[in-house]
Amino acid sequence: MKITVIGGDLRQIYAAETLVSAGHSLATACLDGSPQPLPKPILARPLATAALGADCVLLPFPVESGEGKLHAPLTAKPITLAEVFAAIPPQTPVLAGKCGPQVRALADEHRLTLFDYGQREDLQVKNAIPSAEGAIGIAMEALPRTLHGAHALVIGCGRIGKVLARMLVGLGCAVTVSARKAADLAWIVGNGMDAVQTAFVDSCLGSFDVVFNTVPAMVLPGSRLERLRPDCVVIDLASRPGGTDFAAAAELGLNAIHALGLPGKVAPKSAGIAVAETVLAILTEQGLL
Amino acid sequence: MKITVIGGDLRQIYAAETLVSAGHSLATACLDGSPQPLPKPILARPLATAALGADCVLLPFPVESGEGKLHAPLTAKPITLAEVFAAIPPQTPVLAGKCGPQVRALADEHRLTLFDYGQREDLQVKNAIPSAEGAIGIAMEALPRTLHGAHALVIGCGRIGKVLARMLVGLGCAVTVSARKAADLAWIVGNGMDAVQTAFVDSCLGSFDVVFNTVPAMVLPGSRLERLRPDCVVIDLASRPGGTDFAAAAELGLNAIHALGLPGKVAPKSAGIAVAETVLAILTEQGLL
Amino acid sequence: MKITVIGGDLRQIYAAETLVSAGHSLATACLDGSPQPLPKPILARPLATAALGADCVLLPFPVESGEGKLHAPLTAKPITLAEVFAAIPPQTPVLAGKCGPQVRALADEHRLTLFDYGQREDLQVKNAIPSAEGAIGIAMEALPRTLHGAHALVIGCGRIGKVLARMLVGLGCAVTVSARKAADLAWIVGNGMDAVQTAFVDSCLGSFDVVFNTVPAMVLPGSRLERLRPDCVVIDLASRPGGTDFAAAAELGLNAIHALGLPGKVAPKSAGIAVAETVLAILTEQGLL
Amino acid sequence: MKITVIGGDLRQIYAAETLVSAGHSLATACLDGSPQPLPKPILARPLATAALGADCVLLPFPVESGEGKLHAPLTAKPITLAEVFAAIPPQTPVLAGKCGPQVRALADEHRLTLFDYGQREDLQVKNAIPSAEGAIGIAMEALPRTLHGAHALVIGCGRIGKVLARMLVGLGCAVTVSARKAADLAWIVGNGMDAVQTAFVDSCLGSFDVVFNTVPAMVLPGSRLERLRPDCVVIDLASRPGGTDFAAAAELGLNAIHALGLPGKVAPKSAGIAVAETVLAILTEQGLL
Repeated sequence: MKITVIGGDLRQIYAAETLVSAGHSLATACLDGSPQPLPKPILARPLATAALGADCVLLPFPVESGEGKLHAPLTAKPITLAEVFAAIPPQTPVLAGKCGPQVRALADEHRLTLFDYGQREDLQVKNAIPSAEGAIGIAMEALPRTLHGAHALVIGCGRIGKVLARMLVGLGCAVTVSARKAADLAWIVGNGMDAVQTAFVDSCLGSFDVVFNTVPAMVLPGSRLERLRPDCVVIDLASRPGGTDFAAAAELGLNAIHALGLPGKVAPKSAGIAVAETVLAILTEQGLL
Repeated sequence: MKITVIGGDLRQIYAAETLVSAGHSLATACLDGSPQPLPKPILARPLATAALGADCVLLPFPVESGEGKLHAPLTAKPITLAEVFAAIPPQTPVLAGKCGPQVRALADEHRLTLFDYGQREDLQVKNAIPSAEGAIGIAMEALPRTLHGAHALVIGCGRIGKVLARMLVGLGCAVTVSARKAADLAWIVGNGMDAVQTAFVDSCLGSFDVVFNTVPAMVLPGSRLERLRPDCVVIDLASRPGGTDFAAAAELGLNAIHALGLPGKVAPKSAGIAVAETVLAILTEQGLL
Repeated sequence: MKITVIGGDLRQIYAAETLVSAGHSLATACLDGSPQPLPKPILARPLATAALGADCVLLPFPVESGEGKLHAPLTAKPITLAEVFAAIPPQTPVLAGKCGPQVRALADEHRLTLFDYGQREDLQVKNAIPSAEGAIGIAMEALPRTLHGAHALVIGCGRIGKVLARMLVGLGCAVTVSARKAADLAWIVGNGMDAVQTAFVDSCLGSFDVVFNTVPAMVLPGSRLERLRPDCVVIDLASRPGGTDFAAAAELGLNAIHALGLPGKVAPKSAGIAVAETVLAILTEQGLL
Repeated sequence: MKITVIGGDLRQIYAAETLVSAGHSLATACLDGSPQPLPKPILARPLATAALGADCVLLPFPVESGEGKLHAPLTAKPITLAEVFAAIPPQTPVLAGKCGPQVRALADEHRLTLFDYGQREDLQVKNAIPSAEGAIGIAMEALPRTLHGAHALVIGCGRIGKVLARMLVGLGCAVTVSARKAADLAWIVGNGMDAVQTAFVDSCLGSFDVVFNTVPAMVLPGSRLERLRPDCVVIDLASRPGGTDFAAAAELGLNAIHALGLPGKVAPKSAGIAVAETVLAILTEQGLL
């Protein structure tokens, strides 16, 4: 299959490599500034011609980076999504991550079939691993003590919360997970951690060395931050604006870190392989492969 | 609250004990033959009067045991579900496990509000643990070798499959899990096990010391059993009729074990506590507590 | 190499099989009543001629079973060690497990080079695994609750104590280990368990669902057993006479189990393979292979 | 007890804090440039008078930092060990880490009783944890992929090797450990990792994403480094000069990192608490406390 990769960060380079290993022909555009040389069989082309003759086009995750621009940190010149979609022949299947209404509208306008691979559960499960590892790396650096033996709170028991909690246990951390649903609380206890109802988390906040938030809602307002020990580190993994009142944290002198986009930052290779695997799964399911 | 427990096995004794510890008044019926003495504050009553004045009635899990009979192995005389429901005053909330259409019809007929606690996800998560431990105990006994270092296949990646697979890893087993969904396959790999598409399981069947099935469908027909090593042990946890062709297994001389109702058998105390916790969760959610 | 196996239990059958797979010629004696048929290339011979021409002889672990008799439960007639040693040509290397002074004297008398493979650290490490698994199987059967979530005390932090404690953690048990040495206490805490000085164990005895003893000394006298909960199960793995006052336990109505020789009982295959591997390691180290 | 802490890094500050919490009176010298304020009850004194009246003196780990100098990175002016020992009244017990012959000679000269707490097994076990965590943090940063799913080789199965290997397993790494002794190889397999004889490690070197060395001998000469994949990361934890031919690694373009003194760098608080605990254990054992 002929696949064209347009834009994105290091992940897309690794995704392209993986797709080549799987036997496909790869062309790229807007990846020209990569610190990592493109393996030989991958062609770098100008945007205007990159997608001609392609069986499908792979756009980044997230596809958009502020006001209608393509997320393309590896190329110097800013490129609009409008330019990108205009360069793709009608009917070409396009795979992109995190498609907002504007992106969907553009795809419709250019009669392109759009698949949002950011929605895929398999990719989300796979991304939970580098997110959790990245959070652990940040905690290791921020804490003057070992995670082993530390008391950690993980707020939220979704995909990232579960993987993060298990890895922390694997390092010898004493882990408490907060959740709301009875089934999640049962899972937590069933995995050897302490469970706490999110609503009742206040009373135990003073006992942690580190708090990880995974919930995209204001779960750590000033009133809760006040209850933390002054040397407690807060690592918030929830996407913007996060679940922490960072202004209040600053006033309290707390070390609160908003850690975003970890898979691409800490493990672009693993994250890129996961993108490639997801792309192949979508193409197979759609009967295109 | 006044709670009446009617019928069931050892689990209901432990559930009653737990409810007493939580401050409730307990009466029982059809538990008279228990090998375990009822703790003092729990009253044993005849069926006819046991439910009079009760705020709610707790029936067993499963509530039914063949042709309209109450599951009540601890009492000598068989009791019909019709008798049981007739003895409960109208409007009383009734909690029962695994309610079939006949049970629902009876409840309607006697104007009783029926809650099927067997459906509850929290109870299912909690029951997955004794089910998995029971399966491990059976495997330990059936195999001439340690589980540590053994190659195990777990068919199915639902609640029991996940817990069982993790515990096997905890014992040092080399675990392969078969699943169909991409997200499950990602979970398996993400938890350090080998993943195999259920459809492609045939090719690797010859490499296992033990196979656990958790899928309630014919996943181990004769054609697959033939591929197992002659000393491989099959432990099927799926409810009747199970997922194994037991007749074919017998012909092949394979040791295939249908392990049913493990929580009540191997860990009635843990299973009973889980029933009590689920009952309290339901009553709280319904505003009855 | 020509190896003759004389006496022993199922382990020696599996050891012989493993040695055959490694390319050696095997003859046996005093294994005639095995429930398991000997694989074809293994010859069953009468004791008198079994060792003629052998490059080495493998005796059981333990070699002795009461008053100078060979440990040979798979043959009907009792055989003395004197008979066995008389049947082995002088100078033949003999490998045996747990050689007491009488066995050593007999070997000297018949000018045989004796290697006690029961002393080997590698075998002891390998036997720790089936011992720990066996103990877990016994606990699963004896407890009305799951090991998951149970509170367990492991007395002693030697090979078996360490492996057992880790497996219990793998099953979701809350594990406390008692030890005397500072380095062991550090190991325990470093592995995420609770550590207690053996001398100070009294104060916490009332909190356990199950107690495992691995120390071959009277560590559980009546005065300590009294402090256990009446439903606590005691599993003693220390070789005779064990570390528990079993008479006191019986008086207190406690369920105290003396579990001996677990590797041979619960996992003869794994234990037999370990014997074969140790035999090969000894022969290699001695330059005989 | 009156304890005087002279020199050292952040660990000694945390050790002093811990000793204060345990009820002792603390004075310090040569810690004046600490980024971390000394808690109030700890007195900062000039070197000349710091040890007067002290019941014991705590020197750093390592005590020496190049040509007879005290390891004292938190003070501006270099101080010689001769100055330090001259300032301690005769007969005072002195605890120091890693005492070479020169340090021992100085102690004798000033009639001081010297205890080398760096030799203590309990401290070494405790330091293995921050060393392992530190190595993991370095690997996370150096690798473009997750440790989860990565193939790691740990050379050496001593304290650090064991802890590091287990933590890597806890993060989902596929771990191979190389060792020489049969008992260590049995331990490795018994803990669910792959074992390889150190002598035979060459054949599998090409399969790793990361190699950790813990052996203080030239185990990674150029001839072995050549066999690694070009993107393999080498992290050497062995004390100077390490076990890697770093010059050869540089020529090959390999990323080889010599990671030294990790406990003090990545987890000064945990390492400092461990120092304090060891000090208290020594004083208790010596009957001084």
